[in-house]
Parts: sequence; C-alpha cells; structure tokens
Amino acid sequence: MPGFSNTISLLRESPTRRIDSIRERLRRENRDIIVLSTGQPSIPPPLTAREELAKELIGSGMELFGYTPSQGMLELREAISNDLRITGGVNVDPNDIVITAGGQEAMFATFMAILNPGDEVILMDPTYFGYKPILEYLGAKVRRIRLSMENGFKVDLEELKRSISPRTKAVILVSPDNPTGAIIESSEAKALADLSSDEDFWIVSDEAYRMLVYEGKHEYLYKYAPERTISINTFSKDPGMPGWRLGFVYGPSEAISRIKLAGEELTYCPPAVSQRLAIIYLKSSERMNHVQRIINEYRGKRDIVINEVRKRLPYARFQIPRGSMFIFLDLSSKIMDGDSFAEYALKHHGVAVVPGSYFSDQYRGAVRVSFVWETSNRLIEGINRLSAAVESWKEPQFN
Amino acid sequence: MPGFSNTISLLRESPTRRIDSIRERLRRENRDIIVLSTGQPSIPPPLTAREELAKELIGSGMELFGYTPSQGMLELREAISNDLRITGGVNVDPNDIVITAGGQEAMFATFMAILNPGDEVILMDPTYFGYKPILEYLGAKVRRIRLSMENGFKVDLEELKRSISPRTKAVILVSPDNPTGAIIESSEAKALADLSSDEDFWIVSDEAYRMLVYEGKHEYLYKYAPERTISINTFSKDPGMPGWRLGFVYGPSEAISRIKLAGEELTYCPPAVSQRLAIIYLKSSERMNHVQRIINEYRGKRDIVINEVRKRLPYARFQIPRGSMFIFLDLSSKIMDGDSFAEYALKHHGVAVVPGSYFSDQYRGAVRVSFVWETSNRLIEGINRLSAAVESWKEPQFN
Repeated sequence: MPGFSNTISLLRESPTRRIDSIRERLRRENRDIIVLSTGQPSIPPPLTAREELAKELIGSGMELFGYTPSQGMLELREAISNDLRITGGVNVDPNDIVITAGGQEAMFATFMAILNPGDEVILMDPTYFGYKPILEYLGAKVRRIRLSMENGFKVDLEELKRSISPRTKAVILVSPDNPTGAIIESSEAKALADLSSDEDFWIVSDEAYRMLVYEGKHEYLYKYAPERTISINTFSKDPGMPGWRLGFVYGPSEAISRIKLAGEELTYCPPAVSQRLAIIYLKSSERMNHVQRIINEYRGKRDIVINEVRKRLPYARFQIPRGSMFIFLDLSSKIMDGDSFAEYALKHHGVAVVPGSYFSDQYRGAVRVSFVWETSNRLIEGINRLSAAVESWKEPQFN
Repeated sequence: MPGFSNTISLLRESPTRRIDSIRERLRRENRDIIVLSTGQPSIPPPLTAREELAKELIGSGMELFGYTPSQGMLELREAISNDLRITGGVNVDPNDIVITAGGQEAMFATFMAILNPGDEVILMDPTYFGYKPILEYLGAKVRRIRLSMENGFKVDLEELKRSISPRTKAVILVSPDNPTGAIIESSEAKALADLSSDEDFWIVSDEAYRMLVYEGKHEYLYKYAPERTISINTFSKDPGMPGWRLGFVYGPSEAISRIKLAGEELTYCPPAVSQRLAIIYLKSSERMNHVQRIINEYRGKRDIVINEVRKRLPYARFQIPRGSMFIFLDLSSKIMDGDSFAEYALKHHGVAVVPGSYFSDQYRGAVRVSFVWETSNRLIEGINRLSAAVESWKEPQFN
C-alpha cells in the first residue's frame, strides 16, 4: 500500500462520535439509553418554512439544484446582515459574510486562512473540543488558559496577557460557551478587544449559541474589535438544522475573501437547499417567535435539570448556564477518571454524557450534560441514572 | 491586521467562477449570454423523488434535520454499494464507502489523507483544473503528462513510466475526462493498474462522469487495482444536484477510514437532506430510466454541437467526446491566447466558454464547450457566436 499522510494521524474521531457508536451498539441490543451527550437541538425548523421549501422542491428546476456562489447566495448574506442588525445591533456588509457548510467548515476555513505552522493560538480550558484538532493539524501550537468554575469561567485578563507571545496569532472565545454555558460580559469583551489591538492578534469569536441566551445578553466581539474579530456562526442550533450543514463567518473583508477561497477549495459552495431554507426562515414573520419558543422550552428544561441535579447530585459543582444547551457538572469529589466513568454510566446505567476531559485538561472529573435533547421526564430519569452511576462507581485501580 | 496564512495565497478563485462573475455583470446589463462554460447539468432530479422528499420535509422531526454519521448514512452507503454492483459490476462493501459534501470535498479529503509535503502526483494534461490547487496547497509536487488529441488523449504508458519516481504518491485519472470527454480503455486500465502495483502508487480515479457515457463503456479502475484505487464520485451530474453538495469515495478500508476522519474535520458530516434525496433516487424504480433520459438528451445535444462545429468552425480540431458534458475545441490554427479570446468572446459576442489554459499547459488555443446546459437552439446560436468571435478576433500584440 502506497502509504498515507503523517498529519492525518493527528485527527481522531470526534469524542461524541465515540460515545455515539457505543450508544448505537447498545441500541441494537434494545437497551434504553437516555442521551444527555448530544450537541443536537431538539426543535426542528418551523413547519411553515419547511412547507415553503417543499413547494420549491417540487416546483423548481435547476435553480434549486445548481451550484451557488462560493461565498453563498447574496439573498442569504443580505438576510444575515439584516438579522445581525436586528438581533444584535451589529452592522455587517453582506460582502463581509461568507456562507459555509456548517460551523465545522467555518472553523476549518478560518484557520486555513489565518494560520501558518508555528503560530500560537490561545484556547480556553474548558471550551469546545472541535478547535484543538484543527489547530494541531494546521501546525499551530495550542496554549490553554485555565478558567475556573468559582470565577464563573471568566477570562482572567492578567493570565491571558501572560500567555500572549509575539507568535500569538489568535485567541478563540466561545460565548455562550460549550460546555459551560458561560457568557462573556461587556467589560471582558472590551478588555479582550483592547488587548487584541495592543498585541495584534485575531479574536476568533464562536457565536454558535448566540440566540440561545437565557439570562443576560450576548456580546458581539465584532462591535468591540471590528478589525480583528472573525466570527464563527451556524444554523445548527437556530433554527435547528445541524445535519443540513450551514454556517457563516463574518469579519474584516481581507479575512473573509481568504476564508471564501478556502471554503471554495474544501466544498466549492455551501449546500443550496440549506441556504434556501435559511433564507425562508430568516425572512419569515415568525422567526423571532420561533426563537422565543426555543428559548422558553430550553430554559424550562434547563431549570428542571438544575433542580434534579441539586436533589440527586448534591455533591456536583456547577455554574448555572446562562446560554447554550449544556450544563457542566464537576463531580470531582466523587469521580477522578471521567472518561472511564462516562463509559461505565453508559454501559451499566443507560445514560450517555460527555466526559470533561474532552473539553479540559483540568476538569477530568466533570461531565457535560445536554438539557435540550430528551423530554423533561427523561431528563429527570437521566439525572437519576447519573446519580445511581456515581453512587455505584468504583475508580479503576492502576497498580 | 494580524496577518494571514502564506499558503492560502496558493488558492485562487476557480477559473469558471471568474467567467461567472463577468457573465453576472453582463447579465445585469441585460446582455443575452449563451452559457457554454458551466459544469452544471441541465436536468434536475426526477420529480417523483423530489415529491417523496417534500413529504419527508413536512412530516419529519429532527431525524431529517439532525447530524448523520460522518461516514454518511448506512442506507445511502448500502444503496451506492448496490448501484456500483448493478451498473458497473463492482463489489464494494458499504463500509469501504465514505459520503462527502460533494466531489470537491471528496478530492480534498482524499489528498489530505494520503499526501505528505514533497510527494509527487502525476496529473494528465489536459484534465480537470480542480486538482492542481489542492495538490499545491498540500505541498505536493505536480508532474504533468501531455496527452495528445491525435492519439485520442490516451495515456502513453512509456511516458507515464518515465515520469514515475520514488516520490510518486499518486496518479490522477479522470475518465470520462473533463474537458476532453475521453474514456480510458480496458487495456490502458490494466496497464495502469499493473504499473501502480510495480511502482506502489495510488490511482486516484475520478468517476464523476461515469454514468454519462455515450459510446463505449466506463472502466472501473477499482476492478483492476482494488488495493490501490481510490475513487472520487459525485451526485452532481447524475441525478443532477450539484448545489446540494453530495459525493462519495470508495477504496481500500485503510484509505477510507482516513478520508472519513478528514471529512469529519472539514464538515463534520455530509448534508442530511442531500443524502435522503440520493437514497430515494437510487432506490426508486425509475432510476435507470432517468439515467437513460439524461444520456439520450445529452447525446442528442452533443451531436447537434458537433454538427454545428463542423459547419461553422471547420478549422477546429476535436475528438468526439464519448462521455462527460464537454467538447474540447482546439482553435490553435486561429487562436494563440485562449484566455484573452474567451474574455473577448464573452464581452463582444455574448458567448461564454472556458479557455484551454485552465486544463492544460499545451492547449492554450483551445476552449471547453458544454453541450448540455443550453437548449439545442441556443447551442447552435452559441457555436455561431463562437465562430463570429474567431473570425473577428485579433491576437493581442505585446511589444
């Protein structure tokens, strides 16, 4: 066999995929699994938007099936520009937006566009696990900054300053964060923006959960540092079409033109049918009602989970998530090896969670729990199963 | 500004995109442009398949909108495995297939999986322009082998042998070819397979046009060299959903598992809605009728174009394309600088073609003409405009 790339071995299967495959095996054995591990939303796009797309599906010729511009349809970029203005008070020219095949391509294309091997990138700990493999694949050095639960996972500016070097190319900030649900405050946003200007680095601002905010308000980094902020976005959470692979990036023109070229090389253009659904959704009169419905439902489920955690996992430490779809439970008073525990909880107690090690080098006794995917009753049952798993858990002995 | 990747500058806008943007500008000026430049098919997926998907769109919950396995839905991989067996007599295990976000991602992920910087890759001249930028971006050295029109664009095995070095990692073969429409013969396929075994290189077999064969028969390289053939495929041409971004790769397990990891990093999973339409299409009873309809229509249009070319461009040299959607017209008896000529023909004669330099270092006075996109009458008019453009063309003078 002629051999393979050496760097491809830096890529591993996404950790949630690994849990998915055990889950899939147990499901085939007819085991009932309560899924607190997924990053999927539970509410699909509104029916009226789907009905309108269904009509186009039948009535259209090649205009629905053909390639779109690699930057994405102008009508979608205009609708997004309008949406950012209405929902966030952010002014972004449609030409400074590039549509991507989901948030994943948005991330990959962004770092293809800005990184050179040897560049340093600062990543919070804990935060979303999707960034590290891309950065390492592209030859960047990842520096992690520890955030602490006691401090509400706030970015410690002094520690951030100490981590900046002349090689620092970017700081990644996910807000609302996955897995912690923490939201950056305006004072933090301002300080980060000032630092990016002083030290000349990119802020890669992951706003995947910008519409899923339960208390407080989403801060758009772009408002504070328009010259240095590249924003990663997705339609996976709102309106809830993760499998349709649609996201977008906005930022300074010089960055967007390069991200567009990268995206064109990766997938030629974003999926046309997904772009059409997003256009219909964003322009529909019920768009904000739909968002409100999502927020109300997810907030209600979050509160049910918090209540149950307090009752059944009184030793769990957590911050109430102000956004996103997750609660990050630190079980380190009972659990040291979260990876083994997550596998044990899945196999022996029928509850799937994601271990903290996927997000963090420090919170290895934590688990991420999604509070949106399952019904309220099953969320309660899931926390009960998690509690039973902790009670019966015996830490593996390595002698 | 914090700066960008150095290698991103290796990527340029796709050449057909450049023509598209001039076209778009002329269209806004209400100029009537006959489009012989596009790589899009003209026949969308069958109505019955679209109607079935429309029903799912309205009736489904998150199952149509959620993430799919990164390798693609098992049902689709099974349908493809079945299709390859029925249409080509090729036996491929569904686990040795990975679904991608179009042929573009199939190409990018494949080379991500196999190439190291400094590897050599052999590319025919002329052939599809999409490979070179990917190879260069990934640090490979591209060696081109000149094929000649007189010889029916056959691969000269002796020249191929002379181009092989210990660093040769892969040979790329597009058959049916874009832009020439040439199809590899079984004797050539066998010789290439033997050589790949002797010299231990990958055959990257681009089968995008495998169903669009008008005379002769498509040879599956995988049959000749199953251990060393990685096959790039797409649903863009059959059933005609290029904008929906769906393709697939099949080959040896060790390659497929790595291409899957690459695809997961690039886009997480292929678009779910596109996968559903492909499943419905491949499993529908009218699938082969639809293929036959496409072939009949495209063959008829091809013959109209050939007839008109013979009348109006008698000095054009060409091979009758046995497959694909293109005819490659060598106008070098009249045209030296095909790039300038294509721009001139578009701006002054309202006909869009792709210059030969995009596919070839040698056929710089050629143009690629699509014989499928426009109606028959407009195809005739397009060739007439092309003829008028050649007649009035004056080669630019560089002093």
